[in-house]
Amino acid sequence: MSLIVHKYGGTSMGSTERISNVAKRVAKWARAGHQMVVVPSAMSGETNRLLALAKELAPSIQSDAYYRELDMLAATGEQASSALLAIALQAQGIESVSYAGWQVPIRTNSAYTKARIESIDDQKVRADLEAGRVVIVTGFQGLDDIGNITTLGRGGSDTSAVAVAAAMKADECLIYTDVDGVYTTDPRVVPAARRLQTVSFEEMLEMASMGSKVLQIRSVEFAGKYKVKLRVLSSFTPWDIDINEEATSGTLITFEEDENMEQAIVSGIAFTRDETKISVLGVPDKPGIAYQILGAVADANVEVDMIIQNISKDGKTDFSFTVNHGDYAKTMELLKNTVVPKLGAQEAVGDTKICKVSIVGIGMRSHVGVASTMFRVLSEEGINIQMISTSEIKTSVVIDEKYMELAVKALHKAFGLDQPLN
Amino acid sequence: MSLIVHKYGGTSMGSTERISNVAKRVAKWARAGHQMVVVPSAMSGETNRLLALAKELAPSIQSDAYYRELDMLAATGEQASSALLAIALQAQGIESVSYAGWQVPIRTNSAYTKARIESIDDQKVRADLEAGRVVIVTGFQGLDDIGNITTLGRGGSDTSAVAVAAAMKADECLIYTDVDGVYTTDPRVVPAARRLQTVSFEEMLEMASMGSKVLQIRSVEFAGKYKVKLRVLSSFTPWDIDINEEATSGTLITFEEDENMEQAIVSGIAFTRDETKISVLGVPDKPGIAYQILGAVADANVEVDMIIQNISKDGKTDFSFTVNHGDYAKTMELLKNTVVPKLGAQEAVGDTKICKVSIVGIGMRSHVGVASTMFRVLSEEGINIQMISTSEIKTSVVIDEKYMELAVKALHKAFGLDQPLN
Repeated sequence: MSLIVHKYGGTSMGSTERISNVAKRVAKWARAGHQMVVVPSAMSGETNRLLALAKELAPSIQSDAYYRELDMLAATGEQASSALLAIALQAQGIESVSYAGWQVPIRTNSAYTKARIESIDDQKVRADLEAGRVVIVTGFQGLDDIGNITTLGRGGSDTSAVAVAAAMKADECLIYTDVDGVYTTDPRVVPAARRLQTVSFEEMLEMASMGSKVLQIRSVEFAGKYKVKLRVLSSFTPWDIDINEEATSGTLITFEEDENMEQAIVSGIAFTRDETKISVLGVPDKPGIAYQILGAVADANVEVDMIIQNISKDGKTDFSFTVNHGDYAKTMELLKNTVVPKLGAQEAVGDTKICKVSIVGIGMRSHVGVASTMFRVLSEEGINIQMISTSEIKTSVVIDEKYMELAVKALHKAFGLDQPLN
Repeated sequence: MSLIVHKYGGTSMGSTERISNVAKRVAKWARAGHQMVVVPSAMSGETNRLLALAKELAPSIQSDAYYRELDMLAATGEQASSALLAIALQAQGIESVSYAGWQVPIRTNSAYTKARIESIDDQKVRADLEAGRVVIVTGFQGLDDIGNITTLGRGGSDTSAVAVAAAMKADECLIYTDVDGVYTTDPRVVPAARRLQTVSFEEMLEMASMGSKVLQIRSVEFAGKYKVKLRVLSSFTPWDIDINEEATSGTLITFEEDENMEQAIVSGIAFTRDETKISVLGVPDKPGIAYQILGAVADANVEVDMIIQNISKDGKTDFSFTVNHGDYAKTMELLKNTVVPKLGAQEAVGDTKICKVSIVGIGMRSHVGVASTMFRVLSEEGINIQMISTSEIKTSVVIDEKYMELAVKALHKAFGLDQPLN
């Protein structure tokens, strides 16, 4: 008997018919003898509907008190879908109970709308599993130290599922989604993109953070930290597909490099339009400016991705970094009102029309010249590179967003990802 | 400075525009120096929408596990509307925080879908009030001993509001609704019906229980038990109406008989189609049959209203009582499968086409012959009376539902309620 966690996205939960199909699929796994914990997202569209109501009422508030209420509001979507799934399972003759994040409890910090999970109490869920129940745990939400509901940010249900799987020491966590696995790049951009049967945790981490929307990045971090076996697979196969076939479909995220497999140098091309570039110009070049700029930004709970500091000229330097679109206005305001005057900098300017394209691959570790191939390909296409960042297994560039598709297609081809596997 | 509780029904919360108007009204009260606690219902239609989804998924389940999930589901409606109202107040520049029932907590028993409030912790709410915040508390829901969400049944938000007012020792509890007060009877049935400026707690209790839908009966019981000053008033006056005018509008539910007022003998005619009649026929007439029938019904969490036991004939008797429509199928099943065979009774038969009409008035205490006037009026209209029950201040009859309007109109006129007050 295994303990299995399933996670279903909003599309899979989008109607009573679909919820019913999820219930049938979960019932199949339960009847096969597995202990089952299921983490559903809200019904598709529900979170947006709720947040749009809040936006109508208060178009411009930004305060902790406001974000706290947004979380109270948004968390209802998963609570409702979880109760509905428990009911659908009961209708299949399967004993089932649903818990909201605060009931488990899933403890988080108090960063409303983007909280982080700190701990999960497995006692209640385990007692139900041992009593033969399927347990539904709401995705996306938790409880902070002072008893307020928090949410984990968009895609947070993936993180919930992996965190629950880690806390329960589950044998595997299956993320059911509207795609059938992880691809070499987005097939909507490059039709020749291939599904990967396995991908390493580190590659997945880079893919997720780079905008391959299959999994939320924090869920991958969690999976890596706690060695949760993670599989991304389609929720659009028939629910009565053979369970062994289902259990080996999709893409498995592995933690060991598979030595039997010829590792491609580059596994995938990731890209995102979600970031914006912000530059603080004419900063007096003194020690500590990175801290003074990014410390203030971090204090405002804004995550920074790429960072570059230009070479100093006449005792002044320019400092650029990227943040999510959603944090752009807030960050610009902070810089203009506080950081720029304090540093005696010239000004802060932003560019929202950028994109980030990355090549990702474990194989890059043992191959030199991969980054330079990337730069050559982009140069041949006449694409100007604005920022570069590298790690052991990925190289990212920021370019004008109008070149995104061109860049992705060219790189996908140049690194041989268009070729079939054999 | 007073502590005031406002309660707003689903219609008042039916759109962001209406929620905004509620916020403006509450802000007016807060700015006038009152400490404000607000209990909103779910946005109109929301609870029905959610329960319809559950019904689609599981048309026929009846179990505690199922009812528990219904409560998880339905409670989201009020959590969402409460968060939205807090946000709308923040948009008015008023500090505000919302709490779900479990956060206060509002403790209830575990009778899912019809739980009863057992206690309310006022600490959290009081701390916020003292910090100058308007506190929104979700109506309709609570938390049981084992950490599950419960709901109080339809109209439960009234009870929540009154219970919160009692726990907070509020100066007054204002129930904003889509009618502008309590009427001598339903104006849709009798256009000449008059609004009562005051009504005694006991009369209100009878009116509420008899189907005058203005207030949920348990809220009136609570108000009576804890002497909460209760006012029913319209939420459709402009939000910026003069606060003193608003504070004296609607109908006040009083706890003392007003000696300055010429008390009408009958204050109102109440009626309901919500009940069904069930008869157990041919019951061997032994001591304890009422207990054996009604005990079993009570154990199934079904509330019984009117009860009559016929005179015994040949050692057999018939036993009739009324229950809510919602409990009809469950009760009939229980009787047929368990009670009838156990008692050796002949059969259980039901009649869903009945209605109950009641005359209510404190004045009945000191006037004889009021009931007989009622019977005469009905007899003159050719209406057959099937069951009768009386109390100090009301007389109720069960009649064929097709005569309901006729009976109400005739009684309204016969007791002088068509006449203007002066």
